[in-house]
Amino acid sequence: MSHDDLIARRRVLGGAATALGALGLSSWAQAQGASPAALPPAKPLPAYAAWKNPAALVVHSGTTIETRRSAFGSSVITPAQQLYIRNNLPAPDASILDKRDEWTLEVSGVKQPRSLSLAELKTLGLETVATVLQCSGNGRGFFPSKPSGTPWTVGAAGCVLWSGVPVRTVVAALGGLAEGAVFLTGTGGEKLPEGVDPLSVVVERSVPIKALEDCLLAWEMNGEPLSLAHGGPLRLIVPGYQGVNNIKYIKRLSFDASESKAKIMAHGYRMTPPGAQTSPDQASVWEMNVKSWINGPAADAGPVKAGRVQIHGVAFAGTKAIERVEVSVDGGDSWHTARLVGPDLGRFAWRQFALSVQLPAGTYQLASRAVDTAGNVQPADRVENAHGYNNNSWRDHAVKLVVA
Amino acid sequence: MSHDDLIARRRVLGGAATALGALGLSSWAQAQGASPAALPPAKPLPAYAAWKNPAALVVHSGTTIETRRSAFGSSVITPAQQLYIRNNLPAPDASILDKRDEWTLEVSGVKQPRSLSLAELKTLGLETVATVLQCSGNGRGFFPSKPSGTPWTVGAAGCVLWSGVPVRTVVAALGGLAEGAVFLTGTGGEKLPEGVDPLSVVVERSVPIKALEDCLLAWEMNGEPLSLAHGGPLRLIVPGYQGVNNIKYIKRLSFDASESKAKIMAHGYRMTPPGAQTSPDQASVWEMNVKSWINGPAADAGPVKAGRVQIHGVAFAGTKAIERVEVSVDGGDSWHTARLVGPDLGRFAWRQFALSVQLPAGTYQLASRAVDTAGNVQPADRVENAHGYNNNSWRDHAVKLVVA
Repeated sequence: MSHDDLIARRRVLGGAATALGALGLSSWAQAQGASPAALPPAKPLPAYAAWKNPAALVVHSGTTIETRRSAFGSSVITPAQQLYIRNNLPAPDASILDKRDEWTLEVSGVKQPRSLSLAELKTLGLETVATVLQCSGNGRGFFPSKPSGTPWTVGAAGCVLWSGVPVRTVVAALGGLAEGAVFLTGTGGEKLPEGVDPLSVVVERSVPIKALEDCLLAWEMNGEPLSLAHGGPLRLIVPGYQGVNNIKYIKRLSFDASESKAKIMAHGYRMTPPGAQTSPDQASVWEMNVKSWINGPAADAGPVKAGRVQIHGVAFAGTKAIERVEVSVDGGDSWHTARLVGPDLGRFAWRQFALSVQLPAGTYQLASRAVDTAGNVQPADRVENAHGYNNNSWRDHAVKLVVA
Repeated sequence: MSHDDLIARRRVLGGAATALGALGLSSWAQAQGASPAALPPAKPLPAYAAWKNPAALVVHSGTTIETRRSAFGSSVITPAQQLYIRNNLPAPDASILDKRDEWTLEVSGVKQPRSLSLAELKTLGLETVATVLQCSGNGRGFFPSKPSGTPWTVGAAGCVLWSGVPVRTVVAALGGLAEGAVFLTGTGGEKLPEGVDPLSVVVERSVPIKALEDCLLAWEMNGEPLSLAHGGPLRLIVPGYQGVNNIKYIKRLSFDASESKAKIMAHGYRMTPPGAQTSPDQASVWEMNVKSWINGPAADAGPVKAGRVQIHGVAFAGTKAIERVEVSVDGGDSWHTARLVGPDLGRFAWRQFALSVQLPAGTYQLASRAVDTAGNVQPADRVENAHGYNNNSWRDHAVKLVVA
């Protein structure tokens, strides 16, 4: 998002503060001391996410809420109050959290298939993993082709901590995998609309069985019981995979020879060539690719003073760790290796990077380019596709900085 | 806190939910899905902390707020909404956050002493560090002598991420230390009451100059601009040192040959022998000692089912990393080495630990004992002192678990 775009947006949003106050939502931002540049959203937060920080978010709709680029800050974890939301169906009724421990998960495709309560899952094992959670459409807003779907820029992503039981531990407790398992499939517990084929709406996704080693059934996020907005009481976490594969309110986990026949799997979230129809033989959005972007100096905070500037951002590479990040202040003509900053939370988390530069007055095009430990380099250009998935173009994610 | 104590507390607090609803504070807990055992506080949250999660906290007073032991969960980071508060003076007016970047810090005891704005500090450097923040009185509630002060049990502590500029970077930018610096002293920006000697009330603490290497001037906590409740816009972070040394709203930083003469330094926070008067020759509460405690199964959640149980908790050791943690289910007669769980955020952070055990029906006394990389072992007994500081007794922190 360019500086100009943000100024235009600020103008449009100017009248929203009063409405927000009437909803009683302003105290959060005030108490936390939101900067003047952290604007209130144009639309109010939906009830199930009313506890979030409106100043840090752009509400696209009741099921699509984006973190502002300037709200990411420079620490490694994204707090729950400013984490994005993308739900494929309306969230279930909050009453599903009344008795968390009684939530049940049906497991099939193992030698001893059966249902397990959350209380029982909690006795089997405990692990904590930090992952980047990202909607596969993050960056869609940069496609000139304007694919249908939410025009996310960078804010349909965050880095969070999950606690739960490893799926491999659950599988071992149920006697191991049955013969012929090629895919791991999770099914969400959303209430489906009446009168339509369940397969046309159910949130059910399959990932290759190799993901089993890393998967978690999580009941906690960032040190709190998992909220309804983020899939509580129980969510399947597939570290390194695009967000849609991390099934909220998970009710069923199965290990099968073939992928789910649900529409969201067979036809949704496919790398469909521009102009073509979706089809199950196109690549699904699974592992995230190598990607980075700059979050500061915040493009919406106005010009910065000439002199030393700290440029910072985030970098991640799906299931691979980040090897290094390069930063350019001239739109990609020359590159400088940035420092990796702060604690390393593991290969599924993002790394913060920072570069200290001396900038005389002028206009700069800031870009970042990540390299992962497998040698993959973040590309200059996006892979064009009909629905705007998997955009990791460094050129698309560049930002203009005015130094005065 | 024993199981019985918690049941008694629950009885006392039974009527508080209605009052809380009237304050409009219940939605947070409901939306996040607080468990029935996560009780509302007896007193309402003060205005500057109204954005916190009341269900996760015990409000002792407007300036002393404790995290419930059952609210710590099993991830490594403590979210801001459930982090404890201990302020020595009332928080400044929230207007100090209106123009964060204009906040100024006066630095003396360097070769080129001067004032720096927060905007300028942000240009000098950027680092992120995870630290345990703990009030030195945490565990005072376990002293049979009932020292004056808040009777914290385990909840005057948390593990959080800070972003800011290293103090050593600021010192270098100001030409280096002046001759003779032995202490680093921070002064808080709280408004002092009129008509009293400022030295009797000012929040000003000195730490040995060796801490300089690790200190940070932080403007961000857990990925958000630092809140007023936690010292925003700028706080001195002294990693590995007790909370009181981490000066909120820092206005002055100096490097001197002697410690501050402020009462809070000369007479407060000293390891005073029982019955004696405080005096500057007694040890100050500086580096934290090796300590751990068990957070789950939550003692206030009632009996757990016989069979496999996951015991988990946290361990830290000030400026030293944790080497290992041992857990006992028989009150310390025998010990088992626990697993260290989840990402390692560095030597100033706490580590999560977990132990999977098979427990038949019965009553168990759960205890944990940490060992740091310097070989220090968490002791069975506290060091008795007049004001209840530095309690790291594993016996005091043990919890009773009923298995049915």
